[in-house]
Amino acid sequence: MEFQYQNSYEIEEKIKTCKVALLPIGAVEAHGPHLPLGTDNILAESVARRLAEQVNGLVLPTLPYGQVWSLRNFPGSITLKNESLISILVDIGESLYKQGFTTFAMINGHLGNGTALKEAARVLFETCPELRVFYFFYPGMNQAAEDVRETKSAHNTYFHACEIETSYMLYLAPDFVDMDKAITDIPEIPANADVTPTPWETFTKSAVLGDAKLATSEKGKYIIDIAIENMVRLLTEKASS
Amino acid sequence: MEFQYQNSYEIEEKIKTCKVALLPIGAVEAHGPHLPLGTDNILAESVARRLAEQVNGLVLPTLPYGQVWSLRNFPGSITLKNESLISILVDIGESLYKQGFTTFAMINGHLGNGTALKEAARVLFETCPELRVFYFFYPGMNQAAEDVRETKSAHNTYFHACEIETSYMLYLAPDFVDMDKAITDIPEIPANADVTPTPWETFTKSAVLGDAKLATSEKGKYIIDIAIENMVRLLTEKASS
Amino acid sequence: MEFQYQNSYEIEEKIKTCKVALLPIGAVEAHGPHLPLGTDNILAESVARRLAEQVNGLVLPTLPYGQVWSLRNFPGSITLKNESLISILVDIGESLYKQGFTTFAMINGHLGNGTALKEAARVLFETCPELRVFYFFYPGMNQAAEDVRETKSAHNTYFHACEIETSYMLYLAPDFVDMDKAITDIPEIPANADVTPTPWETFTKSAVLGDAKLATSEKGKYIIDIAIENMVRLLTEKASS
Amino acid sequence: MEFQYQNSYEIEEKIKTCKVALLPIGAVEAHGPHLPLGTDNILAESVARRLAEQVNGLVLPTLPYGQVWSLRNFPGSITLKNESLISILVDIGESLYKQGFTTFAMINGHLGNGTALKEAARVLFETCPELRVFYFFYPGMNQAAEDVRETKSAHNTYFHACEIETSYMLYLAPDFVDMDKAITDIPEIPANADVTPTPWETFTKSAVLGDAKLATSEKGKYIIDIAIENMVRLLTEKASS
Amino acid sequence: MEFQYQNSYEIEEKIKTCKVALLPIGAVEAHGPHLPLGTDNILAESVARRLAEQVNGLVLPTLPYGQVWSLRNFPGSITLKNESLISILVDIGESLYKQGFTTFAMINGHLGNGTALKEAARVLFETCPELRVFYFFYPGMNQAAEDVRETKSAHNTYFHACEIETSYMLYLAPDFVDMDKAITDIPEIPANADVTPTPWETFTKSAVLGDAKLATSEKGKYIIDIAIENMVRLLTEKASS
Amino acid sequence: MEFQYQNSYEIEEKIKTCKVALLPIGAVEAHGPHLPLGTDNILAESVARRLAEQVNGLVLPTLPYGQVWSLRNFPGSITLKNESLISILVDIGESLYKQGFTTFAMINGHLGNGTALKEAARVLFETCPELRVFYFFYPGMNQAAEDVRETKSAHNTYFHACEIETSYMLYLAPDFVDMDKAITDIPEIPANADVTPTPWETFTKSAVLGDAKLATSEKGKYIIDIAIENMVRLLTEKASS
Repeated sequence: MEFQYQNSYEIEEKIKTCKVALLPIGAVEAHGPHLPLGTDNILAESVARRLAEQVNGLVLPTLPYGQVWSLRNFPGSITLKNESLISILVDIGESLYKQGFTTFAMINGHLGNGTALKEAARVLFETCPELRVFYFFYPGMNQAAEDVRETKSAHNTYFHACEIETSYMLYLAPDFVDMDKAITDIPEIPANADVTPTPWETFTKSAVLGDAKLATSEKGKYIIDIAIENMVRLLTEKASS
Repeated sequence: MEFQYQNSYEIEEKIKTCKVALLPIGAVEAHGPHLPLGTDNILAESVARRLAEQVNGLVLPTLPYGQVWSLRNFPGSITLKNESLISILVDIGESLYKQGFTTFAMINGHLGNGTALKEAARVLFETCPELRVFYFFYPGMNQAAEDVRETKSAHNTYFHACEIETSYMLYLAPDFVDMDKAITDIPEIPANADVTPTPWETFTKSAVLGDAKLATSEKGKYIIDIAIENMVRLLTEKASS
Repeated sequence: MEFQYQNSYEIEEKIKTCKVALLPIGAVEAHGPHLPLGTDNILAESVARRLAEQVNGLVLPTLPYGQVWSLRNFPGSITLKNESLISILVDIGESLYKQGFTTFAMINGHLGNGTALKEAARVLFETCPELRVFYFFYPGMNQAAEDVRETKSAHNTYFHACEIETSYMLYLAPDFVDMDKAITDIPEIPANADVTPTPWETFTKSAVLGDAKLATSEKGKYIIDIAIENMVRLLTEKASS
Repeated sequence: MEFQYQNSYEIEEKIKTCKVALLPIGAVEAHGPHLPLGTDNILAESVARRLAEQVNGLVLPTLPYGQVWSLRNFPGSITLKNESLISILVDIGESLYKQGFTTFAMINGHLGNGTALKEAARVLFETCPELRVFYFFYPGMNQAAEDVRETKSAHNTYFHACEIETSYMLYLAPDFVDMDKAITDIPEIPANADVTPTPWETFTKSAVLGDAKLATSEKGKYIIDIAIENMVRLLTEKASS
Repeated sequence: MEFQYQNSYEIEEKIKTCKVALLPIGAVEAHGPHLPLGTDNILAESVARRLAEQVNGLVLPTLPYGQVWSLRNFPGSITLKNESLISILVDIGESLYKQGFTTFAMINGHLGNGTALKEAARVLFETCPELRVFYFFYPGMNQAAEDVRETKSAHNTYFHACEIETSYMLYLAPDFVDMDKAITDIPEIPANADVTPTPWETFTKSAVLGDAKLATSEKGKYIIDIAIENMVRLLTEKASS
Repeated sequence: MEFQYQNSYEIEEKIKTCKVALLPIGAVEAHGPHLPLGTDNILAESVARRLAEQVNGLVLPTLPYGQVWSLRNFPGSITLKNESLISILVDIGESLYKQGFTTFAMINGHLGNGTALKEAARVLFETCPELRVFYFFYPGMNQAAEDVRETKSAHNTYFHACEIETSYMLYLAPDFVDMDKAITDIPEIPANADVTPTPWETFTKSAVLGDAKLATSEKGKYIIDIAIENMVRLLTEKASS
């Protein structure tokens, strides 16, 4: 299931029946005092493994760097330009296509990668028309999060190191969470953050957007299970039907 | 108020007091049988003029071409690559900055331009740090549309040539609408349209995403006035506060 | 005739018989005290409309931004890099080709665009070999201008906001000309302006290169009519024969 | 020591005293029947961890994709273009520089990455002149390998899945080696492989360049320890002295 | 005077007093049956040497490849993309600037290079503002050619392997001319060659545009001497005055 | 044999039987007090001519500019970016392919060009799969140099203006060598020069890496003859066999 731990002969056999390659992609980015910089990588990888089991997929090694514009000035953040990220994803996709895969699914753990992933998918749509390319960022999580969250979301699309994301970690990788350091830090995100470039240091010091103290493994399980179920369905239904 | 109808001497004077440049940007794109290909241009230009009056802004000539990936295969659609669009927007922004403007607001009438506008704004954030750059796509319209719409939206972010957009046109440019040809065509947008590249010809023949027959000028006025009010507020409040 | 005011169904029909797409392209650029910044846009659009009538062409929305290197430091000028302009023109050409057009004619109102237009045409010559691509800048105007001009040209290829261009405007768009402000300002253009980069502020304060006071609608009509006649002939004769 | 498992607050403190960031970089590439596709990643990561202990360095998450031109047509290989790889490495380097690091060392496990790493280092030399950038590929290994190898090398710079590389794995990550499947496959590499593009499928079926059966942990230890010792010395001696 | 035949120590001394670097640039291109493919290189180099004597300049090694779009399909033609040519010229200019030169003059022997040379000069105008950059293509030759030519020019800007260019060669490099093979071949260049991409094979088989038989060394001397005189004057007069 | 001194008709004939095009490429770079800046050009050209005689090849005009990163700050050095060099080499290769050549051999006289040449060859491997592309840098010289050299090499891959390179010049172009100025200057190249960007001014003032005084024509002949013999063999043996 782990692509890179197969040898060349084994993978040649597997590709004959297993046509789905899953690429976890996250980022190295500040996630407050209770979560590690690699939170998005850990989550993406964990989700990809669970998904792989259900769709007979192979999990590629995690691409652990992403586009981190908003939090790039926080300690520990590392950011790629969108062009770099698009370019590398297109390269990977084209290699997979030549190797015989018919589905390339990017399992994204970091919202900021969204633009690059979508653009890469569109490039591959032209260069590898037979390859189905997916970009997943917890599909269906918005509604599911509404079901379980106790605090209002700080923003309609951003969520970060908060009740929700911390819950994901408690469910998928509890060893990497230090709940003793979890804080409540609900920022007032300025309305114009949606319409003008707005580095997050202008409205938060901790990079936590909410109340991490309320996170529980159960909340994480509820949302993640729905997201994975959605991914399974989206991957397995016929294209555009 | 119309930038290009000023002469060089006049504009030199105006820039001293009028620091806000507004760029309408739309697209040439199929909009069903009742709306013209240039609908997004007409709307963006009309909104920009109204906004200019309220913020003492100058309206630049409309950039009438945009990124039209989803509908590019429909008759009459013309599409730009994101790179082309980003590049031209950065050039315009840098020129405005050198001319003495302190605010560059892109008034967008076409959802597909969103990625390029945001990226261009981020480039300008580096190259012209003193310039405030905005990308507006009817801010606040989602909620306002909920207030007036009679049919459910076909999609949570797409709206196109439907009850809503047709209402905008009836309010802002009724001469360009042929309500006799308005149709009801509510497509079933496949769930994976959000996670894999999905040209719209796979789910609609008309390019209408909803019930254009229900459009009214009043609905358009309700939403557009809110959107313009929001733009005024976002432009005039202090940055990131 | 106006591409963007057609709807998608109408244009689909028209393209079956009308295979010529005309793109007006100008610039936003200082044109002295008597002509607006958008002079080149106004002229290109007006010429394109007249031409369209004679060749059964469709007029695309004007691309109102151009490469304005020489006058970029004058109040109100906005400039694009050649790369940006080439890129956008290639995108438009490729879209038209896919839509079924066989001729794409760029009707240029701004000399500085010449390099980009020619380069874009050559790119399209490779990518869309069946598409005939034209770049017109008042073909035949040099000789025609000699016939009517009363003052000597300030330069062998430049003409700007002078007797000639002002005459074009008086013929095609008199409402945008303020002859009361027309001036005589014949610069001494240094010989090395042809062989080394030379911003125009080094030799003119007004951006007028000549005697705008001598402009008349009749002179404009004489030259423009010849130019349009030439375009009609060039478009309709067999390729390279 | 593992960068991504620190949180943002911890890393902020550590960077004050620990100025060396180590980036393991490898590839996904065919390595014969006895070694996994991710061999170069596993080696680079393992070496980086040992090195970090000695130079008080922080180990960044492994970049697990590389430039795999020669073996790209083998089952399981994934290749990046040099441009993609350079671009991403420059991005990472610039982020590290802004974060306060003074040394960025790329610990390379895949020969094919060499060109991109050197080029990226030169770009960073211009954009971040204060940052020392290193590209390590087992420094000193050529001579050390001579000391221990029992078979002649198949090529003067290439070594792959052979006595040497397999020994590295036996020393650093024995769990990933299946010595039962190790083979002897000494190809005749054509002389012109050094002077004309030569995909490896033209001279090897297994991707093994030598006698993997002779690999031992001791041989690996001998070379790797020397290489790490060299890296420590190169990192800690004064620049260019 | 020949830059590349100096050693590093000599050139260091010379640059202190000799601030003008001359770059001959031509092309490899079909020039009919009587002139060699390298005609433009031979001419550019010869002109540069004569010019160097008069302006105390240093002659760089000839860049012998150029942009040969129009004749690229003729036997022996080699063409560069404009982007490649611009890029290399900018690199050379920037190196010269760092070396201490204050003037970089490109002595062009091939019309098709004109676009790239002008563009490169403009790039250098931004990156090396203190460096004066010139692009010369026989300045003043049009009028001088009128004085001596016996046949009408086939085109208002093109001249190629004809009475004029052959005369240049007879004056500057007679050993490379085979007048016995000189031909008269006056093509009818279609009017649209100026407004649409037109490879020259559509109107000439020989690549000769005129009557090469009428060429004489005297005609060549007359024009070339004027051109060199003009270059001397343009280089030595104050910038933009 | 000299490509550019043929005319278009002659070359058309020759290409029918002579399918090998040789491109000498060097650099303009400091080579100490006894060798000219153009040493690498002179050597490459001379080697190419000798090689052409033996393989019935045509010698293209020398590309006299190269990538000179290490010595770029020495008086007289001119450097190209790798991208520029790759781009121009690909253009030349593609032109040769269209002209009917089946072999394109780059005869390199400057080590720093190696990366660009190899990369250009790989690009051409994709775009012109039928074209065989070679990049030669004195193949076999390392061993041959060992046979004749009296001093130890200053570095395992660098050699520059030293006993070896000066010997090449004494053999191939003695008129360009001033042995009276030859010096002994054996630098201590820091070990990290192989693993971090290291401009050569940090370890040498003369740019001579060794004892130029020991150079002789005989040593040059010995190595060069071997190198040419190797090139002949590599060019004429079957691809990858």
